[in-house]
Formats: sequence, structure tokens, C-alpha cells
Amino acid sequence: MAEGKVLSGAGLRGQVAGKTALSTVGKSGAGLTYRGYDVQDLAEHCQFEEVAYLILYGELPTQAQLDAYKAKLKGLRSLPQALKEVLERIPADAHPMDVMRTGCSMLGNLETETSFDQQHDATDRLLAVFPSIITYWYRFSHDGVRIDENTDDDSIGAHFLHLLHGKKPNELHEQVMNVSLILYAEHEFNASTFTARVCASTLSDMHSCITGAIGSLRGPLHGGANEAAMDMIENWKSADEAEREMMGMLERKEKIMGFGHAIYKDSDPRNAIIKIWSEKLANDVGDTVLYPVSVRCEEVMWREKKLFCNADFFHASAYHFMGIATKLFTPIFMMSRLTGWAAHVMEQRADNRIIRPSAEYTGYDLRKVVPIAER
Amino acid sequence: MAEGKVLSGAGLRGQVAGKTALSTVGKSGAGLTYRGYDVQDLAEHCQFEEVAYLILYGELPTQAQLDAYKAKLKGLRSLPQALKEVLERIPADAHPMDVMRTGCSMLGNLETETSFDQQHDATDRLLAVFPSIITYWYRFSHDGVRIDENTDDDSIGAHFLHLLHGKKPNELHEQVMNVSLILYAEHEFNASTFTARVCASTLSDMHSCITGAIGSLRGPLHGGANEAAMDMIENWKSADEAEREMMGMLERKEKIMGFGHAIYKDSDPRNAIIKIWSEKLANDVGDTVLYPVSVRCEEVMWREKKLFCNADFFHASAYHFMGIATKLFTPIFMMSRLTGWAAHVMEQRADNRIIRPSAEYTGYDLRKVVPIAER
Repeated sequence: MAEGKVLSGAGLRGQVAGKTALSTVGKSGAGLTYRGYDVQDLAEHCQFEEVAYLILYGELPTQAQLDAYKAKLKGLRSLPQALKEVLERIPADAHPMDVMRTGCSMLGNLETETSFDQQHDATDRLLAVFPSIITYWYRFSHDGVRIDENTDDDSIGAHFLHLLHGKKPNELHEQVMNVSLILYAEHEFNASTFTARVCASTLSDMHSCITGAIGSLRGPLHGGANEAAMDMIENWKSADEAEREMMGMLERKEKIMGFGHAIYKDSDPRNAIIKIWSEKLANDVGDTVLYPVSVRCEEVMWREKKLFCNADFFHASAYHFMGIATKLFTPIFMMSRLTGWAAHVMEQRADNRIIRPSAEYTGYDLRKVVPIAER
Repeated sequence: MAEGKVLSGAGLRGQVAGKTALSTVGKSGAGLTYRGYDVQDLAEHCQFEEVAYLILYGELPTQAQLDAYKAKLKGLRSLPQALKEVLERIPADAHPMDVMRTGCSMLGNLETETSFDQQHDATDRLLAVFPSIITYWYRFSHDGVRIDENTDDDSIGAHFLHLLHGKKPNELHEQVMNVSLILYAEHEFNASTFTARVCASTLSDMHSCITGAIGSLRGPLHGGANEAAMDMIENWKSADEAEREMMGMLERKEKIMGFGHAIYKDSDPRNAIIKIWSEKLANDVGDTVLYPVSVRCEEVMWREKKLFCNADFFHASAYHFMGIATKLFTPIFMMSRLTGWAAHVMEQRADNRIIRPSAEYTGYDLRKVVPIAER
């Protein structure tokens, strides 16, 4: 127990909990890399499925490998009937991340990973089926529609938008989904990924690891910042109003979501990328409010607090311009981050020791039980 | 990222990851204490519900508090109809811990913890309803029976056995369940508890934390040792055969489950307690094989390897004597450990910083994306 080394800093901050070859976050010279590639380079030149393949299989695919991988994923979009029936029993007011968590867990009963030889297949299945899970529940519970979850869309992002809106997305929207999924795919030992690794260290199955990670991403200190940013900016009718209101929030020391980061100190490398796409979407839909409001927020926070937008802030407007309900923002993050989680599970399994830290004991010294009649 | 302090020892072994007032494990002078009370003292003098109250609310209850607590738990045993319908869709060959994980997650959709003010109620509900969840699924999928999950049994242990066997248990069985649930209730920063704390550190909801912990306990390096022990000892028809077979296993360096412990060095304080109860059950059912086989295993492992029985080993025979299917052993562990998990979640919430360790990077240096046509 508490006889381990006491280290400064709660939350294991700055303590090395293991090794990874998957990503670097905030390392000097490169903001965020996946297996050595800068995320900006990947976002500019790759499809999300290429990046998922890179993260999960170790290298960027050749054209033939990518074609085969996308064909495999396309073939894995169907929901088992029992899973549909479970999703139909989840009410419309449920938290969408609870739906994802339950869908993943239920699938683990129906398609159990019984050997680590199946880890890639189990992961690819989850990657393909999560958009089906969330949209099946969403459309059934909100619109009373049982969607056909099989589309012939080429990408996971397009498949998701197609199921959500009931029609194929335009090319711009497919591109934005692609970039967004790349940006959220992997981020080292964040809390949800670390949850997956702790679970994996007991040699539990893939569905347990991912189910646990979903539950952690659900927490407002982790996922959900883009939803909180949306809830804020949608109240404001102009950039000037945004500035006034924001200055008031700062004066009242209210928490403003979508800015700053636990690891990055000067900027979040993902922000510049998604901001460009948010602007393109604003032009496409003829927006004259939300994008200018977002830009002003960025200016005010930098001017007043030297706080920069993180990946989440311009995701809010981008998703909104594509007609995505705010409550579905974190599930999209999750569909992407699955790749990082699963790769970390595989990495943990390949060189495992059960993760079992010590605690500093702060409780009672030994005491005797007093019989209940004398308490 | 990897600029944190590199520490020796994988799996955070010996590294302090936080504070707890809930238990000590292996501290000199007392093998295992819950809030200052020795587990042997508690097992001798208390009911499980008293210990759950101690762990969750901080002090042993008075008689009036215990009566009120048991009445509250009794009133929380019903399954929502939607949850029953979910359980009916989980096949008989599912892993019972996957059923527990899914049942917990589904309940989170139906009875979401929307404020930390609800954390005690959410926990008490789970404590009361888990026996109903596992037995409802088990009896439906294995026997085609829709059980009535409401009993008037006084204790959680009796309620579980009643639902499982369709009749009230005798007093001895109720006592053994009581002791067993006390022994498994809490064990500091083990992997499943740490999973729950990592999840809690994102300020996620109680159902997410417990769902994640279930997934970690499912792993064969964590829960499941009593099931593995049972699978082994039930093959042997006599103590002499057990000794012969065990010597062969040792010679072949096969893994033998139920012995030794990551933290305890000389003995597991829980073993002496459950061993006595296993012997009582053996006498009660007129067993002349399984208990002598178990005792011989203990002797051989100590003689040959200086390895002691941990809490799990005599649990195997004890549960078996009560007619409990081996696959349900870990779910019983889970029904008990829930108390520790939830108390750790509450403790984490009360003094929180998000758990976000660093990683040592072992991957590629920065490289440029090669266009797909040139790969």
C-alpha cells in the first residue's frame, strides 16, 4: 500500500505510466504526431481511413491496402438485430455517450473477442459500426424511424452524415468529417486512453477496454468541450455581443470551454486546421453570425488571457454548419478516438504488466469493531 | 508528453497515484483494513450491509441506521422493464461479466446520475439491483424462466441465492454469502478500482465509472481466479490425485490460480476466514472430495513454492458447495466490490484532478507523408 514513493502533483501529472510508439503531444518541434507524422501533414494529405490504418496497423497503407481496408469496413456496418432492439429501448433523453457505451458493451455480448488474435477484427468492426449505433438510436428515439444502416458511402464520415440526415452528404461535408476524424484520432495518455490501458492490463477483452474509455470520455473535463463551446456561442447574435458577454464571463471568473490545454502551452496544432474548414463551411452556408462570433471569441481570449483555442472550439461551429445536433459532437469525437484507444490496448497487451499503483493512506488507524447494540 | 520523470517498474508498481482513507492492504500489523477496521474483525461481527454502509458512508451504522439502510436496499431490487428486455437479448453463452457491464451501462441510460448529489442513491440502487441483473439474465437464458426479482430476503447474499435457486437459502448459506461479500468489498488501488478512479477524474457519472471497473475486473489477471481454481480442482477425485497432478503442473511450470498475491507477501488475511466457512459447508453437504482436495493443494503449494492461498482459492469450493455455477463467481465478487469502487469514485470526486499521466515515447522520429501513389 502506501509505502510506495510519494510524488508531487495529483493526477499522475508528469509521471510516466508506460511507453508508447503511437503519438507525441506537445513535443518540441512538432505539436502532435501519430507514429511520427505531423497531424497537419496527415490532415492535408490523407483520408481518415488511411490514418486509422496507420494508427492500428503501424504504417500508412498503399492504395491496394487502403482499398481493401475501406471495403472491409464497408462490409461491417450492419447492426445485429439484438443490438437494434437494445438501442430501441434507450430513451430519447439519454446521454448519447451512454448510448455509445451501452452499444459497445452489448456488442461485446454478441461478438465477444475470445482471443487476442481477433483484436484487429474486433476493432475494425467497432470502427465501422459506431456511426450505425449512434444514428440508429438517434433517428429511432427522436424521429421514430428505423433507418437502414447500410450505405455505400466511401468513407466513415460520409456514412455517418448519410445515416444522420437520410441523404448523401456533399463533398465539402465529407471532407470536413474526414479532417475532423483525423484530428481527434489519437492523443497519447489522456484519461480515456489511460482507462483503456488500465483495463487492457488485466488482459480483459477489447469491448471492455473501449466501453471503459467511452465512459471516461463522457466526463465534462475530457470530452464535451465542443458541446459546451456550442452551447455558449449559439447564444450570441453578433461578434460585438460575443465580446461583451465574454468580457462579463471573464470578469465573473466563469469557466469558458474550448480554450487552453493541459499539455499544449502556446497553441493547439489542431485548431488552425479545423478553423479553416469552419470558415469554408460558413461561406458555404452563408453564415454571418456564428463564424464571426467564434473568431471574436478567439481574439478576446488571447488578448485578455493569452489562452488559445483548442481542437474543440472551431469544431463546434463546423459541426453546427453541417446540421449536426450539439449532443452528437462527443460521439463523433469517440468514433475517431476509438482508433487511438484500440491501438493503445494492442500496445499494452504486447508488453503488459497489470497497472496497479499504490495509494497514500489518509484514513483511520486500526480500530476495533464496537458491537452494533453499543454504537 | 515524454518529458515527465521516468520511473522504474512497469504498471505503476509502487508509485503513489493518489490518496485514500478507505483501506490499507498489506500494511504492517494489519493485513487488510476497511476504514481502520480489520477485515477479520468485520467478517466476524458484521453483516455485509453494515460493511457496505461503513465503506460508503464512512462509519459503521447504528441499529436504526442499518435497519433503514436494509429497508432502502430491499426497495431497490426491481428491474426496469427496458432493462429486462435488454437482458433477454443477451445470449446464454455470453460472458457473465459482459452481462453485468451491459446491465450497469443500460441502467445508466434509464436512471442517469445527473448530479453528484445523487451519488449515494445511484450506488445503493446498483448494490441492490446487481443480484437481480445477473440472475434475471442467467435464469432467462439458461432455463427460459422470467424470474420475479423481488424477494423479501433480509440480505443481499440471501436475495442473490434466492433468485438463483428459486428458493430461500438456509442460514448457513446466507452466512457464507455475507462473509464472502465482506471479504471482497474493498482492496485499495487494484486495477478495477483504479479504472473507476481514472473515469471519475473526468467527472463522469457513476454508471460510467462502475461499467469501466466491471470491464477491468473481467480480465483474467484480476477477477476470475476463483473460477480458474474451480476449473482445476473439480477435475480431481482425491487429495492424492490432486497432489500428483499439482506436482506435474509445477514441474511443467504451468500457471496455478488462487495462490500468491501482488501485494501480500506471506499470507492473504482473507484466506483463513473463507477456509473455515468452506469447511463448514463441506461438512454440511457431506463432501469428502473437494474440500480435502483444496486443503491438499494448499499444503503442496506452500511446501513446494512457499505460495499461500489468496482470497480466491477457498471461495471456489465454498461457492460450489452452495450450488453456484462457476461462471457466476466473478459476478459475485463484483456485487461486493461495487462498494469499494463507488466509495473510491466519491473520494476521487471530493478532491479531484484529472488523471492524465505521461508516456515515454518509443516511436518514429518526425517523418513526412509520402503520397499514396508513391508508397
